[in-house]
Amino acid sequence: MDKKETMISMLRAAREAASTLAVAETEQKNLALRHLANLLRQRKSDILAANAADVSRAREAGRTAALIDRLTLNDARVEAMAQGVEQIIALPDPVGEICDPTTRPNGLRVARMRIPLGVIGIVFEARPNVVVDVAALCIKSGNAVIMRGGSEAAQSNAVLGDLVAEVCDQTGLPPVSVQVVRDTDRELVLMLLQARGLVDLVIPRGGEELIRFVDENARVPVILHYKGVCHVYVDRDADLAKALPIVINAKVQRPGVCNAMETLLIDEPIADRFLADAARELQKHGVELRGCAASRRIVPSMKEATEEDWYTEYLDLICAVRVVNGVDEALAHIAKYGSSHTEAIVTENYTTAGRFLRAAQSSCVAVNASTRFNDGGELGLGAEIGISTSKLHAYGPMGLRELTTAKFIVLGNGQVRK
Amino acid sequence: MDKKETMISMLRAAREAASTLAVAETEQKNLALRHLANLLRQRKSDILAANAADVSRAREAGRTAALIDRLTLNDARVEAMAQGVEQIIALPDPVGEICDPTTRPNGLRVARMRIPLGVIGIVFEARPNVVVDVAALCIKSGNAVIMRGGSEAAQSNAVLGDLVAEVCDQTGLPPVSVQVVRDTDRELVLMLLQARGLVDLVIPRGGEELIRFVDENARVPVILHYKGVCHVYVDRDADLAKALPIVINAKVQRPGVCNAMETLLIDEPIADRFLADAARELQKHGVELRGCAASRRIVPSMKEATEEDWYTEYLDLICAVRVVNGVDEALAHIAKYGSSHTEAIVTENYTTAGRFLRAAQSSCVAVNASTRFNDGGELGLGAEIGISTSKLHAYGPMGLRELTTAKFIVLGNGQVRK
Repeated sequence: MDKKETMISMLRAAREAASTLAVAETEQKNLALRHLANLLRQRKSDILAANAADVSRAREAGRTAALIDRLTLNDARVEAMAQGVEQIIALPDPVGEICDPTTRPNGLRVARMRIPLGVIGIVFEARPNVVVDVAALCIKSGNAVIMRGGSEAAQSNAVLGDLVAEVCDQTGLPPVSVQVVRDTDRELVLMLLQARGLVDLVIPRGGEELIRFVDENARVPVILHYKGVCHVYVDRDADLAKALPIVINAKVQRPGVCNAMETLLIDEPIADRFLADAARELQKHGVELRGCAASRRIVPSMKEATEEDWYTEYLDLICAVRVVNGVDEALAHIAKYGSSHTEAIVTENYTTAGRFLRAAQSSCVAVNASTRFNDGGELGLGAEIGISTSKLHAYGPMGLRELTTAKFIVLGNGQVRK
Repeated sequence: MDKKETMISMLRAAREAASTLAVAETEQKNLALRHLANLLRQRKSDILAANAADVSRAREAGRTAALIDRLTLNDARVEAMAQGVEQIIALPDPVGEICDPTTRPNGLRVARMRIPLGVIGIVFEARPNVVVDVAALCIKSGNAVIMRGGSEAAQSNAVLGDLVAEVCDQTGLPPVSVQVVRDTDRELVLMLLQARGLVDLVIPRGGEELIRFVDENARVPVILHYKGVCHVYVDRDADLAKALPIVINAKVQRPGVCNAMETLLIDEPIADRFLADAARELQKHGVELRGCAASRRIVPSMKEATEEDWYTEYLDLICAVRVVNGVDEALAHIAKYGSSHTEAIVTENYTTAGRFLRAAQSSCVAVNASTRFNDGGELGLGAEIGISTSKLHAYGPMGLRELTTAKFIVLGNGQVRK
C-alpha cells in the first residue's frame, strides 16, 4: 500500500470510528481519559526518551531556541499533560445536551440535541502536547480525529499517538478514534485538507505560514485565526488607576501570544494626563513605543508609527500608540486595522461601555479588563482546541461545545403535515 | 467602470453597510420592514409588469412549465411576500441577545453576545420572491447582503431590489444594505464566491447544479444542502395506525421537496403485516415502489430496487422500500445511504426511540411524526434563509439566529491576568 492509500484508509477508518464515538456514553469516554492520564505518568520515561531523540535531532539541525523550547518535554510538562486530561474529564459532556425546547401548536415537541461534528483534522507544528490535548478534547466530545504534526516532533508524536490508541483499545473505544499521521510528506496534509465527505473540520495550530497554507488549500471547512492585533482603548471617562495596570498587563505579561495588546488607543482629552505615565511604565518594562504625531508631542522619545504599524502583530515588547477622539474614532480604528481578535475599553461611562461592547465586532470584547483574558481557560470553557476569528460556527476560543453541532429533534404522536 | 470593478465596489459598499447595520436598533430595522411590506402592496402593478416581461421572455425561450411556475408572480404571491415580511417583523431580533452568562473566580462576568455575520452572499435561480425574503431576513439580523439571481428573473429581481433600496434609504439604513447584481455574467458569481475578507457567508438557493457550482468554486464559507434522501423507519413496536398516515404524508403530501420521504425502511417482524397495507395506500396515491428482495416477496408488484435507488432523491412519486432487521440495521442503512437531511422513526418503544434519536446524525430526527416537518416555519424558526446539511455553524433550517454569531463579552472592574 503506498502512502496515499494508507492515508485514505486512515480517513475511512476515522469516519467509521466517528459513528461509534458519536453514541459512546460519557462514562466510557471518561474511563478512556482516566486511563490516558494514568498511562502518561506510567510511560513518562518512554515519552521523554522519544522526545529527547527529537530534541537532539532539532539541535543538530540548528533549529531556533524557541522551536526547541516548544518541542521539549520534561517531567513537569508530562505531568501538565496528564492534569490537562483530568481537567477534561471534569467538564460536562456536551453530546446529547438538549436545548431550545418548544411545543408547536400541533403538539409536536421540538428541541435541539448536540451531536459531535464527526471527523476532525488537526495540522500542527512542534508542540507534542497537542497530541494529548486534542485527543482528550475529541474523545470527550465524541469526535474521531486525524492529526499531522511537524516532522521535528515525529518520535514524540508517534509514542503519544500509540499511547492514546492503546488506551482506546483497552477501554472499548475504536483504536482508530485518534490517529497520528507518521509520514511527514506534505502531500498527505493536502489530502487531509481536501478530504471532502471524510473530514468535517480542520483546525491548524501553529504559525502564520502553516495557517496560510491550510487556509489556501483546504477544501473542507476550516476554523483558524491568523493573528491577534488586539487593542486597549482608554476612554476619557476611564478610571486611570484601573487603566494603567490593564495596559501594562495586556502588553507585557506575555507579549508573545495572540491576546497581548499590540496597539494602545488613548482618548484625546486624557492623553496629556495618561500617556506620559503609561509610556514611562511601559518603557520601564522594556517596551518600545511607536506613536502617532499627537502621542509623540506628549512623549517625544517615541518612534514614529507608520501606517504598517497599525496592522502589525508584534508578538514582542513593541507597542503602537495612537490618540483618538472618542469611542467612535477608536471603534473605526479597530474596524480598519484590527484582526477580529480581542478589544478592551477602559471607562467608567455606562453608555460608552455599552456602545463599545455592542459595536466592536471582535471575538472577545472586554470592559475594564485585560485583553489577556481571551483564553478558553480564563473564559470558563475549561480547555480549548483553538481560537476562531472567523464568525462561522465559533467565534473566540473553542471548547468542547464548539466541537459539536445541534440537530433538530421532533417528538410527535402521529402528526402529519397539513 | 467595467463590470468587475462595479462588482468590487458593490462588495466594498456591502462591507461598509454591514458596520452600520450591525448596530442598527431593532425599531429602525422593523420600520424598514414595515415600509417594505407596504411598498410591495403599493407597487404591485410595477412588480407584476416587470415579472410579466420575464415570464414572456421565458415562454419565448421555451423554458419548462416548472421554471415558469417558479418565476411567475401574481396578486396572491406579492401579498404572500408582504405577509412574509410582516412575519419577520414579529420575530425577536437576535442581535445583542446575551447568553451563557457566568462569573469567574476573579469576579469577571463573562457571557456571549450575538452579532451579525456581516456580509451574506446569496446565489439563486428563478424565484423572484427570494429577493424579498432574503432582504427581510438580512435586514432584521443586521447583515448586509449581495444577491445574484438567475437571468430568467432579471427584471423582477431588479424592480424588487430597487424597492428594497428605496425602503432602506427612506428609513435611514444604507441603501446598499441589500444589493442585487444585475449583470448575469457568471464571472461575477465567481467573484462573489471568492471574495475573501469581503463576504462572510454564501448561501446558494436552487437546484443541484447551482449548488455544486457554488460548492466547488467558493473560497468563502458556504452553507448548503445537496439533497434530501429522507427515511421513515417503521419499527417492530410501531403503532401501525400512526405509521400508515406518517408514511403516506411523508411521501405524497408534496413529493417534489427535500424533506419528502424517499426510502421506507420496515422492520422485519412487522413487514408482513404492514407492507401490504402501506404499498396499497401508496400505490393508490400513484406512487411507484421499488423494493428489496424481501419486500418484493410481500408485494410482488414492486419493481426491483437497485443499489443506486438507495442513494436517490426522486423528488417524485417514487419510493424505495427495504426490509431491515431492527433499529440498528435501519441506522446503518441511513448512515450509508442518507444525505444527513431528515429521518423519522415510528415506534412506541421508549428505548428504541431514544436510540434512534441519539444515533441518527441527520439535521432533523423525528419520532412518530412526518419527515415533512423539517422546515423553518414548522419547527418554529418563523422563517428560514436556507437549510444546512453540513454540521458547521448550522444544521437544519437556518433562521434569523443562524445569521448571527456569538462573541464573548467580558465585564471587569480592573482585572489583569496573573
